[in-house]
Formats: sequence, C-alpha cells, structure tokens
Amino acid sequence: MPTSKPTKRVSLKALDAPPRARASGYPEQFRARVAGREKKPLGDLFGLSNFGVNLTRLAPGCVSAIRHAHSKQDEFVYILAGHPVLVTNGGETEMHPGMCAGFAAGSGDAHQLVNPGPDIVKYLEVGDRTKDDTVVYPDDDLAATLGADGAWRYQRKDGTPY
Amino acid sequence: MPTSKPTKRVSLKALDAPPRARASGYPEQFRARVAGREKKPLGDLFGLSNFGVNLTRLAPGCVSAIRHAHSKQDEFVYILAGHPVLVTNGGETEMHPGMCAGFAAGSGDAHQLVNPGPDIVKYLEVGDRTKDDTVVYPDDDLAATLGADGAWRYQRKDGTPY
Repeated sequence: MPTSKPTKRVSLKALDAPPRARASGYPEQFRARVAGREKKPLGDLFGLSNFGVNLTRLAPGCVSAIRHAHSKQDEFVYILAGHPVLVTNGGETEMHPGMCAGFAAGSGDAHQLVNPGPDIVKYLEVGDRTKDDTVVYPDDDLAATLGADGAWRYQRKDGTPY
Repeated sequence: MPTSKPTKRVSLKALDAPPRARASGYPEQFRARVAGREKKPLGDLFGLSNFGVNLTRLAPGCVSAIRHAHSKQDEFVYILAGHPVLVTNGGETEMHPGMCAGFAAGSGDAHQLVNPGPDIVKYLEVGDRTKDDTVVYPDDDLAATLGADGAWRYQRKDGTPY
C-alpha cells in the first residue's frame, strides 16, 4: 500500500490562507478599534522567517493598527482594494488600489490606515523581524517592546503594564 | 521669499515609480533571458533598508530570474496580473492574479517565474537584505555571492569570474 507523502506547498491563492489565530495582541481596551480587521499571514505558510507578509482586510470604520512608529522594523503596504486613508504625522492621504507606502524604521513618523468605508479595504503588508524593536504610539497611552521570544509586550507610557 | 522645502514622500502610485537604473547585474551572456523584465523598486523610495519590494513586469517569453536559490535571504511574490509559470525543483505550477509563493532561505529549492504569454505578467516581489548571502543556479554555470558593499558578484561554478 503506498504511503502518503506530505506535499510541499509551492504556491497559494492568497484568499485561501487561514486568518491568524489571534486577531489582536493589543491590551483589551484597544481591541475594538481593530475588531473589523482580519490578517492572513502568507509568508509564514512558506516557511519565511526574515519578514512577514499578510493579506489584510479592513471593514468600514476599522483601522489597520493604532497609529505607531517602529524603531528598527521597516513596514510597507500595497493597496489591493478599497480606499483607505493613510494617517501620518503630516496629516491624511487618500490611497487607492495600486498605491503603496513605506514606513522606515526609526523615522518617528507614526502611521495607520483608516477605512472610512463604504468599501472593504484589502492590502498586502510587509514587515521585517529585526530584534529588539520598540514601538511608540503618539496618540495613545501605549508603548510596546519586542521580547526575545518574538512576542510583543504592551505597557503604558509610564512603564506600568496593562 | 519663501524657500522651497523638500516634500517627504508619504505614498505613491506604484506604476509611477521609476524603473531601476541597471536592468540586470547578470554576466552579459545571461542577460537576454531577462531582457523583457522591468523592476520598479518601491521600498527604496520610502527609505526602507531591511527589505526591498519591487513591482516587476515580465514581457511574454521573459523569465523573472535565472532559476536560483538563496542561502540566507527569503523571497516572496504576489501575482497582480498575467499567468506566469512558477518553476521549482518539483516542477511547474501555473499562477494567476491573487496567488502568491514564498521561497525560504536555505531550502535549496531553486525557483523562477516564466511568462509563456500572451499577457504581460505583473507581480510584487519582496526580498530581505541579510548579509553574506550566496545564490546557487542549478541549471546554469553560475554562482553569486553578496559582497560587503551590497553588490552581487557572479562567477562560474569552478570559481572563475565571468
């Protein structure tokens, strides 16, 4: 009787990827803002470890993340569908499919995408996994540090934990 | 008189990005295979340094790269238009818009996209910039190493330079 052999994944329809198990790692009081966000990790499915790529979907009224800036990790987004508003320190910019934006580590320019609706927003997001990263959130009493275990730890700006 | 201040780039229509200055770094005898390839670096325009993102276009008959595998750098592609064939050690897979593939560093599974036509292929490609990377090309008398200056050096498999 032939034994079945595990099939190595070669390619994938991105929409078929499963959503990540934990919708948000934020402290509970911040989670409502991203309740309409779904992230499908794509790179992980192929064993990539140096960077992550997600196919992310924002329902109307939802934000991509609490507005933030990384100290060591670069980020990049490419809009596939919908018309999100990119909010940075400099103000608001409407984006549409085929547009992209990059957020350089250490720039201090905090960013988020907001979906004002009525359409669903879909985009690809890329971020590397440089260690010892920290994140600042200028609009909220929140700060984050990346632990040696790869998990984010959130605290208030005075250093007390949530 | 007011002085003009450089405007910081916030977002960009990806198609408006300029193609990279040097179409290919391959030794001359390999360049014809990628003559119909155009890469528009996107991440660099936002000052990203940990990884690169290109919007790449393949004319019919063109390949994305000589079939290769990296030792340290991960790669990822997301198809935006056209129907390329992904060639890996395991064979050929037809891809279509909305499909993605990832190529993990150190897997030894060499890959390339081929555009059999008749449509133009467009895709996003992501690769990190881990140092001391090397590249093997199983189908050709070619090998590459990443120099400390960030430039690729190509040689034959016996180590002699082109």
